[in-house]
Amino acid sequence: PDTYSLERGLPIPQGISKKAFLSAIEELKSAIGNENVQLNEKEVKNGWYMEHPNTHDMMPLLDAEEFIASAVVYPGSVAEVQLIVRWANQHLIPLFPISIGRNLGYGGAAPRVRGSVTMDLGRRMNKILDINAENYTCLVEPGVTYYALHEELVRRGLQDKMWIDCPDLGGGSVIGNALDRGVGYTPYGDHWGMHSGLEVVLPTGELVRTGMGALEGANTWQCFPYGFGPYNDGIFSQSNFGIVTKMGMTLMPNPGGYESFMYTFQHDSDLGPLMDIIRPLRISNILENVAQVRHGLQTLSVKGHPRTKYWSGKGPMPESVYREHLKETATGDCAWVYYGMAYGPPHIRAHKLAIIDSEFHRIAGCKKIDPATMPKDEYFWSRDRIASGTPDLEELKWVNWMPNGAHIAFSPVSPISGKDAEALYTMAKRRHTEQGFDLMPAFCVGLREMHLIVEIVYDAQDGDMRRRAERCLRDMIDDAAALGYGEYRTHLALMDQVAATYNFNDGALMKLNNTLKDALDPNGILAPGRCGIWPARYRGRGWEL
Amino acid sequence: PDTYSLERGLPIPQGISKKAFLSAIEELKSAIGNENVQLNEKEVKNGWYMEHPNTHDMMPLLDAEEFIASAVVYPGSVAEVQLIVRWANQHLIPLFPISIGRNLGYGGAAPRVRGSVTMDLGRRMNKILDINAENYTCLVEPGVTYYALHEELVRRGLQDKMWIDCPDLGGGSVIGNALDRGVGYTPYGDHWGMHSGLEVVLPTGELVRTGMGALEGANTWQCFPYGFGPYNDGIFSQSNFGIVTKMGMTLMPNPGGYESFMYTFQHDSDLGPLMDIIRPLRISNILENVAQVRHGLQTLSVKGHPRTKYWSGKGPMPESVYREHLKETATGDCAWVYYGMAYGPPHIRAHKLAIIDSEFHRIAGCKKIDPATMPKDEYFWSRDRIASGTPDLEELKWVNWMPNGAHIAFSPVSPISGKDAEALYTMAKRRHTEQGFDLMPAFCVGLREMHLIVEIVYDAQDGDMRRRAERCLRDMIDDAAALGYGEYRTHLALMDQVAATYNFNDGALMKLNNTLKDALDPNGILAPGRCGIWPARYRGRGWEL
Ligand SMILES: Cc1cc2nc3c(=O)[nH]c(=O)nc-3n(C[C@H](O)[C@H](O)[C@H](O)COP(=O)(O)OP(=O)(O)OC[C@H]3O[C@@H](n4cnc5c(N)ncnc54)[C@H](O)[C@@H]3O)c2cc1C
Ligand SMILES: Cc1cc2nc3c(=O)[nH]c(=O)nc-3n(C[C@H](O)[C@H](O)[C@H](O)COP(=O)(O)OP(=O)(O)OC[C@H]3O[C@@H](n4cnc5c(N)ncnc54)[C@H](O)[C@@H]3O)c2cc1C
Repeated sequence: PDTYSLERGLPIPQGISKKAFLSAIEELKSAIGNENVQLNEKEVKNGWYMEHPNTHDMMPLLDAEEFIASAVVYPGSVAEVQLIVRWANQHLIPLFPISIGRNLGYGGAAPRVRGSVTMDLGRRMNKILDINAENYTCLVEPGVTYYALHEELVRRGLQDKMWIDCPDLGGGSVIGNALDRGVGYTPYGDHWGMHSGLEVVLPTGELVRTGMGALEGANTWQCFPYGFGPYNDGIFSQSNFGIVTKMGMTLMPNPGGYESFMYTFQHDSDLGPLMDIIRPLRISNILENVAQVRHGLQTLSVKGHPRTKYWSGKGPMPESVYREHLKETATGDCAWVYYGMAYGPPHIRAHKLAIIDSEFHRIAGCKKIDPATMPKDEYFWSRDRIASGTPDLEELKWVNWMPNGAHIAFSPVSPISGKDAEALYTMAKRRHTEQGFDLMPAFCVGLREMHLIVEIVYDAQDGDMRRRAERCLRDMIDDAAALGYGEYRTHLALMDQVAATYNFNDGALMKLNNTLKDALDPNGILAPGRCGIWPARYRGRGWEL
Repeated sequence: PDTYSLERGLPIPQGISKKAFLSAIEELKSAIGNENVQLNEKEVKNGWYMEHPNTHDMMPLLDAEEFIASAVVYPGSVAEVQLIVRWANQHLIPLFPISIGRNLGYGGAAPRVRGSVTMDLGRRMNKILDINAENYTCLVEPGVTYYALHEELVRRGLQDKMWIDCPDLGGGSVIGNALDRGVGYTPYGDHWGMHSGLEVVLPTGELVRTGMGALEGANTWQCFPYGFGPYNDGIFSQSNFGIVTKMGMTLMPNPGGYESFMYTFQHDSDLGPLMDIIRPLRISNILENVAQVRHGLQTLSVKGHPRTKYWSGKGPMPESVYREHLKETATGDCAWVYYGMAYGPPHIRAHKLAIIDSEFHRIAGCKKIDPATMPKDEYFWSRDRIASGTPDLEELKWVNWMPNGAHIAFSPVSPISGKDAEALYTMAKRRHTEQGFDLMPAFCVGLREMHLIVEIVYDAQDGDMRRRAERCLRDMIDDAAALGYGEYRTHLALMDQVAATYNFNDGALMKLNNTLKDALDPNGILAPGRCGIWPARYRGRGWEL
């Protein structure tokens, strides 16, 4: 059901009485307006991607009332953010900031600690504060989505001059995605690496600008990320050390032309040799964008039909079945698909494309699929849009694979190498088979590393399937760590486990993170548990999962 | 004189008796060996670049005994670094870590606090721990210089496969330079941005590895900088929060060819229009490297002759004089010189060079100087080496401009724009004229910003000239801040002043830095005052300059 009532009632945060909590909420309402504070007491609605809930994860992995907010608050200004933070410190109420809350696959809008007050920054703080057409930069508030930024470029007639870089789905927040260190698919795909300048409200309420933003009257905040002295920005990504209220982002100049290309490979075992061919081409920028090497099955699932259209047996769909169906698609029968883009004027692209073509053809059975043969609704064109800076939503379609389709991501990092790709693929396949899931991996090739993204699609209403999905994930995290691979990002429910794999010298990195957390957030009010970092007040008290 | 005796005697750090200090030193000697601890009690030697002192700045700006070490210690291992740090905590003795100590123009090897014990990491910890020819990365210890890294690539026959990126002088430390966020001149010129992974001894002695280094057995430490959770690396650059014992660095793949080019421009007033032409070309990577736009006078001074060879009047050398002399050089008469490099195979370079040529020629009087006309000892070839990854020392020559030549750098950041270049140039010119110095600026064009580097060359034995140099610097820092420009890096003596210009919201950034400092270094032993950050024990007690 799309809407359900809260069986456990209003999720009061641990350590505060209902009375004290409700009175604190009243206080907050009178400070910033009734309409900007909403209790989450009756029922919650799952909605869908574009109308997602901000109280919980619409694709729950655990009990749906575990990671859930007691209330949602909508600040309208930096001063209100500061006010709310001070309020939380006074009442020792955990706050969970989100920009948009479309972090699907990683926990959606849900807070890590049940009963946190979610600070939905995006609702009212959603202005594009600046687009600088000379420096190719912009300055945005948390509520600015990729769609909104792109539309503004179009509105100003700048879309031919400069591009944004977007993830596979365009409804996310430019700030939220970068803070979780998300990736996109143009040469500007490393979103964190491409930002310049933050404005942050610290957990004690002080307002800081980093980089050149700390120099009053500077015109370089979005041009030069470092400023003078320690470069602090990084501690505000994948953490719970501050609330980001503004971020600068660089924009990519139109490269003077672009051209998507697609190759298919016939055998599962082509993966290794392909990766070894890709590595030097990628590091030397002959392959220029964060390309995806996708499994054939994902090319099928992204058509948006339920799995049952193709097969209704138990366990993973057999290879023979999906390959038979692939034959009827524009992609054709294959094991792997490479989606890439060449940039620049025609003769420059031709130079690179010729090298790529001859290198890829070292693999027997490699085929270049002519874009002209691909219908307009083929997924290829979605990749084409994204790799050239136009937001899209096609990628959502593979969620239809299951009824009540939900998904969760496993995203380990490895070098770009055949040996590593094979090790991860073999391991993931074994664990998926054990738990009866279809394995649909995509390798997102960065510059010297790749993120393997495995999305398990499950039926969110099926408790057993949810548990199998969690088991599969947890086993893969442990297996990967034993092989030397770590996740670049993870789901709320798995953050403790993933953080614990970064364990050198008896967890020295987490001890450092804890030291920073205690110094910056002495009352432990900001997003407790996010990325495995627990404030002193919670640490070692059984909160870890 | 090259060697002088210490008039003020052994520089005992403030707050400890001579007896207690000497006994602490004895304790340290017995822990790590007599030969690895040297008291600085009798005389100090200035030496020259290749045999520089590690006790003080060979190019002092203030009294030569102000920024000076009481002793130098040479750890031979990470465990010894930890031991020394614990020792310093126990005795409350300030420690100042250097990798090589060739930070000339920014304080050389000198500590900020008189009597600090300098930890010279480079002497014994100087191994290249790894060069990965598949991923184009390396892992180095503090003592690895650009020369050493380059030689090792040559030794392994890899110099045709991958390049290092070096600053103008090759004798610096790969780690030390990156930690101070130095720049080089290939497309990999942003050294901090190009590193991947740190190993750090914290001020309390714990050993941390950042990024993927925190995952035991990982093979991605040098491939993927971020890891999981907060990306902490940045707080260890331009700070005093830790001692870096290992750093990963990425290496540039040979681009398949390269070609240096040089243009001259006739009028001082060409600067503005030139910068506006450069900006879009640079941001779109038609101009691919961190190029230098140099003033004609610097092209003359880098020949290495004393200023008196050309002119012996008082005050700045008149334009007519140096332009007359420039006529006799391969550069020819000019106001500005652009040194750049195009990368890739010939037809790819031709594409970019043609665009550059037509754009640059929009400025009347612009000349492309044919490399074939330039003698082998022309400075152009030094830039050619550096922009293609070969370390060099030519740049040292302009220090000969003055007897007992010393220099200090003013390095403000601005957008790449004519307006900004002109504002900075006009301001610097006025301040140089006031204090009677020759102005020899170079604009180092990054991607969306440029660092203006103005080096004041002065006679280190001439107290009046030293004071004028300091005055000129301090005035420029204030003037720049009033115009909205801040320094990306600065000299030890000016760190407090520069840090104070990053003053948004009543110094919120410095308050944050102080919070971090107090949490990480409660006893305040590590490099007190570096980058304007003072530990609690020193803060507000008159240490600022
Ligand atoms: C089909 C599909 C495809 C996807 N493809 C991609 C992809 O290609 N690349 C990719 O990166 N992701 C991808 N995702 C994951 C996700 O959708 C995006 O990363 C999305 O941008 C994240 O949600 P958001 O932008 O709304 O961020 P939010 O949910 O607003 O933020 C994410 C988290 O960051 C923190 N945070 C957010 N804002 C702030 C703030 N202002 N201050 C402090 N902390 C804050 C919070 O902890 C929050 O939970 C995909 C998801 C799906 C379902
Ligand atoms: C003629 C001339 C030209 C120059 N050109 C350039 C140029 O093109 N680009 C450029 O960037 N610089 C340039 N410089 C400045 C300087 O020479 C270089 O930056 C040089 O690399 C810095 O010295 P170093 O590498 O020996 O570093 P160090 O002196 O070893 O380190 C610099 C500082 O970093 C800190 N530090 C060093 N190691 C550690 C560690 N392991 N842990 C913690 N803190 C540490 C210390 O505070 C130290 O003072 C130039 C200087 C001159 C004289």
